[in-house]
Amino acid sequence: MHTILIIGTGKSSTYLIDYLAKTTVEKNRKLILADLSKDLAIQKAKINPQIVATAIDLNNISERKKIVAQADIVISMLPAFLHPLIAEDCLELGKHFFTASYESEQLRSLSNQIKEKDLLFLNECGLDPGIDHMSAMKIIHQEQAKGNEIIGFKSFTGGVLAPESEDNPWKYKFTWNPRNVVLAGQGVSRFIRNGKYKYVPYHMLFKRLETISFEDVGDFDGYPNRDSLSYRKIYGLDNIPTMLRGTLRRAGFCQSWDVFVQLGMTDDSFEMDLPAGFTKRMFVNSFLPYHDEKSIETKIMELLPWVTEEIIAKIAWLGILDEEELPKLKGSPAAILQVILEDKWSLKPSDKDMIVMQHLVEIKTPIGNKSIKSSLVCKGENQTYTAMAKTVGLPLAIAVDLFLDGKITSRGLQIPTVPEIYQPILDTLEQEDIIFKEQEIRK
Amino acid sequence: MHTILIIGTGKSSTYLIDYLAKTTVEKNRKLILADLSKDLAIQKAKINPQIVATAIDLNNISERKKIVAQADIVISMLPAFLHPLIAEDCLELGKHFFTASYESEQLRSLSNQIKEKDLLFLNECGLDPGIDHMSAMKIIHQEQAKGNEIIGFKSFTGGVLAPESEDNPWKYKFTWNPRNVVLAGQGVSRFIRNGKYKYVPYHMLFKRLETISFEDVGDFDGYPNRDSLSYRKIYGLDNIPTMLRGTLRRAGFCQSWDVFVQLGMTDDSFEMDLPAGFTKRMFVNSFLPYHDEKSIETKIMELLPWVTEEIIAKIAWLGILDEEELPKLKGSPAAILQVILEDKWSLKPSDKDMIVMQHLVEIKTPIGNKSIKSSLVCKGENQTYTAMAKTVGLPLAIAVDLFLDGKITSRGLQIPTVPEIYQPILDTLEQEDIIFKEQEIRK
Repeated sequence: MHTILIIGTGKSSTYLIDYLAKTTVEKNRKLILADLSKDLAIQKAKINPQIVATAIDLNNISERKKIVAQADIVISMLPAFLHPLIAEDCLELGKHFFTASYESEQLRSLSNQIKEKDLLFLNECGLDPGIDHMSAMKIIHQEQAKGNEIIGFKSFTGGVLAPESEDNPWKYKFTWNPRNVVLAGQGVSRFIRNGKYKYVPYHMLFKRLETISFEDVGDFDGYPNRDSLSYRKIYGLDNIPTMLRGTLRRAGFCQSWDVFVQLGMTDDSFEMDLPAGFTKRMFVNSFLPYHDEKSIETKIMELLPWVTEEIIAKIAWLGILDEEELPKLKGSPAAILQVILEDKWSLKPSDKDMIVMQHLVEIKTPIGNKSIKSSLVCKGENQTYTAMAKTVGLPLAIAVDLFLDGKITSRGLQIPTVPEIYQPILDTLEQEDIIFKEQEIRK
Repeated sequence: MHTILIIGTGKSSTYLIDYLAKTTVEKNRKLILADLSKDLAIQKAKINPQIVATAIDLNNISERKKIVAQADIVISMLPAFLHPLIAEDCLELGKHFFTASYESEQLRSLSNQIKEKDLLFLNECGLDPGIDHMSAMKIIHQEQAKGNEIIGFKSFTGGVLAPESEDNPWKYKFTWNPRNVVLAGQGVSRFIRNGKYKYVPYHMLFKRLETISFEDVGDFDGYPNRDSLSYRKIYGLDNIPTMLRGTLRRAGFCQSWDVFVQLGMTDDSFEMDLPAGFTKRMFVNSFLPYHDEKSIETKIMELLPWVTEEIIAKIAWLGILDEEELPKLKGSPAAILQVILEDKWSLKPSDKDMIVMQHLVEIKTPIGNKSIKSSLVCKGENQTYTAMAKTVGLPLAIAVDLFLDGKITSRGLQIPTVPEIYQPILDTLEQEDIIFKEQEIRK
């Protein structure tokens, strides 16, 4: 009888827990749900004699190890910086270890020991990273097996609103961590296109857009996301002339969002400490040049000549131009902006989220070039069963299930870029309605 | 017989050493010049029996303390991060301590002990910080003594070329640390104007210009410099509605420089590692959007619509648009840009630098408002006797001389904002031709 331990039973663990809970009955497994909050763990456990809910205090080393020791396999759904803590316990106690987060340098330093102990430490097995790798590698390997050469790879992912919930002028609400959304894109984004290296500073990012179209859900803005160059090695495409990974927002979002970026309102590098009575309108004005008479709206349009009346209307809709006291006076501009946005961009009970992903692959074949457009659209059911929780949790759940069934035999530190891992996961995801639509265009 | 120790005898110590060397004879003092390079120290000592040159290895604690122990007063001309090391020796051995650098948190933490030991630790006694504080406080105190109220304070400083050396299209060369020039303005600049707080992100800084005019040397671009808000407390003007400190460049410089800022070429946050054969032109192109046919020049003008042919010509003059291999392939964009600029912006032997400083003070008097414009222009003589070395070194030298003569009696951790310190220093600076021209305008 196998025992699975899930540490962290928050919002994004819903599908993960449900999927594995089902297997406890069918396959006679035990499932331990551990969370800082025992109540949350109990709530997620529902009524199932095969499931145990427990509180876990990560700082209590002996207690933590006692919980880890009970499992055969450990899934960490904790914030990424806490993974190494659990990973080291797993290594010491000889437990397999799974996450949906990026493989870290700290984990890489354990690589040899993981192999020696014949364990599998599988990371990047969620959505992005996760499904992106798997679906990309499937196309890449398929084409390479036919003797074709991949000459261009672009891939975009977005966590957005389902079209039926796009009921505000931004067509956007926070469907995941608001802080990460406000800070998205900071740093320098790097990619290569037709052999030309490209570096995009944050303040230029939301001007360097590409339209990405989905047959059934329309157009999105795609902007480059961090270091695409490193994916050449990860995908085994070291000499590919075009490699770009990007983020998707509903078409039109980025140009309006760029107003906040240009004004410096997404800056997280310093603390403001504003006097009582400071209003939202004064907050915006503090990022604009001084003028004796001109309105804030006029100053924005003069400073950023591409700003239209429509964009001003979208900004005004947020209430951020109102003479109303700021809900937060102390914090970085980004933190203050976040609180203002949360007021308008929070989900209604009936709202649904959506995950969109698209790969655009250019391929050289003996009879000419072709391109493959592979698209995934996944809508959430409600605010518990979100598309985000589904696409992050299911790949991980399926990987664990397959592993315990002996259908994944890889060992060591892995990410799901090898067929033995990605193929059965993608097949099972299709049964759960996570399906890529592929379109091939001959040139 | 007093002994003065100067640690660090590099380029900016010329005037400091010469001034104090003169007093060794006149006032029977001993001067020790200590530098990492003994040769450099010997060279600066010239032939003077009152001056001793010595090598100093800062990591050799006992040797370092032995040298400090010989002095009554220590001047650190080391890079700012090394000051606390020397300051702690001085505190332990009961020596007075002088620098031209900003008072650091580390020094502030020693404040009580400095006082208890009846020592003077005087910082910010160079140009900026230094002469700026002294000349500003003189005006502020003078007006306050008349019963007037300071309602606006703006102050700008620049290290630039003397007009006779402005023989390139940029009218600029590196007259001080090139790295600091390339990175100048990074972070968020903060000030207050007519009671309105203003925050300017780096990518907007070179658009938020003010023309600052000097009767004898013409117009300059002034842009806000870091945290002006903190100067309200330092100058005792806590409730002043306008407080802005800025940096000066020759008029027209900032708009062209902004091209590099906008493209992300002054970024110092990540390392590029470019393949051999990568040219200067490819380096610029890597910050521009991809296009099959358009030239780099066209792409710059499309991305930054305010860029004129004249600006393109200035950029081209730097050689940065040439198909010539990059002189540096590995490093941050800022570091690579710096190497390219150093090729064109280095001083010829006959070139002279210049320091420009201007305070613009708004004053409320019982019979109406007035403004005072106080301007300093100081030209260098050559590349050894630069205006920068003069304006940084002389205030410090004069402060030490006055202190040893018993004309400065303050003790504890100080900056030169008190009359007892700034008044005699400013008076002596006038004899050295560092003179502010004051203009009063009644409104």
